Amino acid sequence: MANTKKRNVIVGQSGGPTAAINSSLAGVYRTAIERGYNKVYGMLHGIQGLMEGRYVDLSEHIKTGLDEELLKRTPAAYLGSCRYKLPEIHENREVYEKIFEILDELEIDCFIYIGGNDSMDTIKKLSDYGLVFGSDIRFVGCPKTIDNDLALTDHTPGFGSAAKYIGTSVKEVIRDGWSLETEHGQVIIIEIMGRNAGWLTGASILSKGEDCDGPDAIYLPELTFDIDKFLDNVRRLLSKKASVVICVSEGIKTADGKYVSESGETSAYTDAFGHKQLAGTAAFLARRVSEEIGCKTRAIEFSTLQRAAGHMVSRIDILEAYEVGGAAMKAADEGLSGMMVVIVRLSDDPYQATTEVKDVHKIANDERLVPREWITEDGTSVTEEFASYVRPLIQGDVQPIMVNGIPRHLYVPGFQELL
Amino acid sequence: MANTKKRNVIVGQSGGPTAAINSSLAGVYRTAIERGYNKVYGMLHGIQGLMEGRYVDLSEHIKTGLDEELLKRTPAAYLGSCRYKLPEIHENREVYEKIFEILDELEIDCFIYIGGNDSMDTIKKLSDYGLVFGSDIRFVGCPKTIDNDLALTDHTPGFGSAAKYIGTSVKEVIRDGWSLETEHGQVIIIEIMGRNAGWLTGASILSKGEDCDGPDAIYLPELTFDIDKFLDNVRRLLSKKASVVICVSEGIKTADGKYVSESGETSAYTDAFGHKQLAGTAAFLARRVSEEIGCKTRAIEFSTLQRAAGHMVSRIDILEAYEVGGAAMKAADEGLSGMMVVIVRLSDDPYQATTEVKDVHKIANDERLVPREWITEDGTSVTEEFASYVRPLIQGDVQPIMVNGIPRHLYVPGFQELL
Repeated sequence: MANTKKRNVIVGQSGGPTAAINSSLAGVYRTAIERGYNKVYGMLHGIQGLMEGRYVDLSEHIKTGLDEELLKRTPAAYLGSCRYKLPEIHENREVYEKIFEILDELEIDCFIYIGGNDSMDTIKKLSDYGLVFGSDIRFVGCPKTIDNDLALTDHTPGFGSAAKYIGTSVKEVIRDGWSLETEHGQVIIIEIMGRNAGWLTGASILSKGEDCDGPDAIYLPELTFDIDKFLDNVRRLLSKKASVVICVSEGIKTADGKYVSESGETSAYTDAFGHKQLAGTAAFLARRVSEEIGCKTRAIEFSTLQRAAGHMVSRIDILEAYEVGGAAMKAADEGLSGMMVVIVRLSDDPYQATTEVKDVHKIANDERLVPREWITEDGTSVTEEFASYVRPLIQGDVQPIMVNGIPRHLYVPGFQELL
Repeated sequence: MANTKKRNVIVGQSGGPTAAINSSLAGVYRTAIERGYNKVYGMLHGIQGLMEGRYVDLSEHIKTGLDEELLKRTPAAYLGSCRYKLPEIHENREVYEKIFEILDELEIDCFIYIGGNDSMDTIKKLSDYGLVFGSDIRFVGCPKTIDNDLALTDHTPGFGSAAKYIGTSVKEVIRDGWSLETEHGQVIIIEIMGRNAGWLTGASILSKGEDCDGPDAIYLPELTFDIDKFLDNVRRLLSKKASVVICVSEGIKTADGKYVSESGETSAYTDAFGHKQLAGTAAFLARRVSEEIGCKTRAIEFSTLQRAAGHMVSRIDILEAYEVGGAAMKAADEGLSGMMVVIVRLSDDPYQATTEVKDVHKIANDERLVPREWITEDGTSVTEEFASYVRPLIQGDVQPIMVNGIPRHLYVPGFQELL
């Protein structure tokens, strides 16, 4: 169980950034302070930075309630992130010895890691090591990923805000597409993040409503992509409407297991350092449509805009991110280790959810994909069940705090130089 | 002067869509009704659609005050747009005869055209023809373009909202860039619209503030682009910081007068129909940086998102767009023709502006570029004067009307099929 005298907490952020990850950081900080911890340290660039002795005292960053509100509204990983995966314990014990040495020096009781699949692997290994070598430190994971592909949780913080941005932006692109007429019609192909899981690409269905048809086709990475069938579908759609909008996952693959963007000879080239660079999936498909059908095309990549759009977040998402941060801290404070907080949906309408903790061994390195029954039979869209699942997660807004017409983010002078 | 008995008005939208063009449409409609006109027709796809007899009665679209608010918040050209340029009068009088025949059939007194340079050419020619052939119809132009390149007006409606979106999104991309460390640093290149005028690309400077350095370099199309100097600058920037963000105009050209995206052999290919397709400017430069410097790169195109982002507009811009629509209608009602409404800035701080009307002959087909003295001497950024000019235009917000978590737009069932 917990030490009777509370000492310090350390928190890190890992994996791809989101618009909600800093709200979880704020939740960890607030709960740690309220539960009587002395210092809350923030690892710079996650476990990788910690191993280099890079961390900050968060009280120097979150000094006021306004700072905390700004942090909740600041996109991307405030503390910096990393994609570092710890070695197996038996392969390299020195790494673990070093980490625990730093944690002991800092008098850490609780270690909170905000991240996705790989980050939960870090929690798993550190808690396993701690258990075997008799450490009192508790290691708890806080879920985060726009990809929504974590097991055992109803959804992941970060997903709702990205889904809201995608639904909104796809709707605006569709509207823009109505504006100009072209002789042979036009096809707009939008590329959305998610290498293996199609949750974000599917979220483009949220653009559909009384005032918008939504995307004319949606291709998820869960199904094999067939370029000929795709072109046939484009021809069919173009025969019915002047402006066709299609959303594709960056990770769609053809039957040979290759990414679509690898299919064409012209789409890949090797740079001077021998790295193979891929053209985007949307750019590749737009080119094929132009070649085969001869209509005007446009490829749009939402790129990092979709994970960094702090100006267009879901209130549900930002609040839940804050809550799971607090719940992770609470779990660690109460003596749990090797666990991750999950969100459990109690009802759809009205939407209600709560948090629980689950054994991180059952979560790490697993990937939750869109179930086949939530994709339409012909594989070119998602079902109403899919939309009903996502819709509650994009509700409500968090107004940016505008300064001089632009959203304000949390920043302490000189901090960027540390990152 | 005006007819004593008021009859009807027709209004059209032309050129590239914006997030504010429909606010001008709402302004024209409101003022026409308040000034006692019977019907307000909307041309579908501008003058091109009108020549095919395509128009709607706007009272069937704007039935309530809420409809008008939705219209102000609806991005892209509600009525559809066109890029049609009228022939010279002496070259093809039949075209003019046909247009005036339609206008007479519809009992039009006032013809309002919302658009940019090419659209003002339409106003010029129609008013010239009307003058020569003794028509009573008044032709008045209402300025619109995200490019901000119209002569004689302080700025153009549509620019402020696009500038606000660009400033915000660039800031979010910069923040996202801090998140992940890479061994040799990373360079993010953002491509922004504006073939000849760098107003929008320069607006990326608005991301700069107490919490953000802003872009590390900005390249406008007003100056000749030198790829070697660019690469030197990237090397210099990378030696100082881990994540470098550079904004470039889609229209930057090298000394031989070619677009940058045309410079590389690998960047252009010809499709089956003989059309030369260009790779994007940002994609091309990112590839060159990767080849020459070997760091991680990312190319981001804001694409149509920057002109269609109805969810992130400037209040000043939406209100001014409404006002210039009303002012155009008022000018026509008072008997003026061959004129365009312009915005005159009275003061910067506090920002105050008013409208005037100017002879469209002095505006059409002219292009206003960023003055050399508003670009830094080394040509890699814009000055504080530039920022001070743009900043007032992005102030204030217009909240989207959210339905089910997504902004709602004006839509009448069946209307899309007419477009």
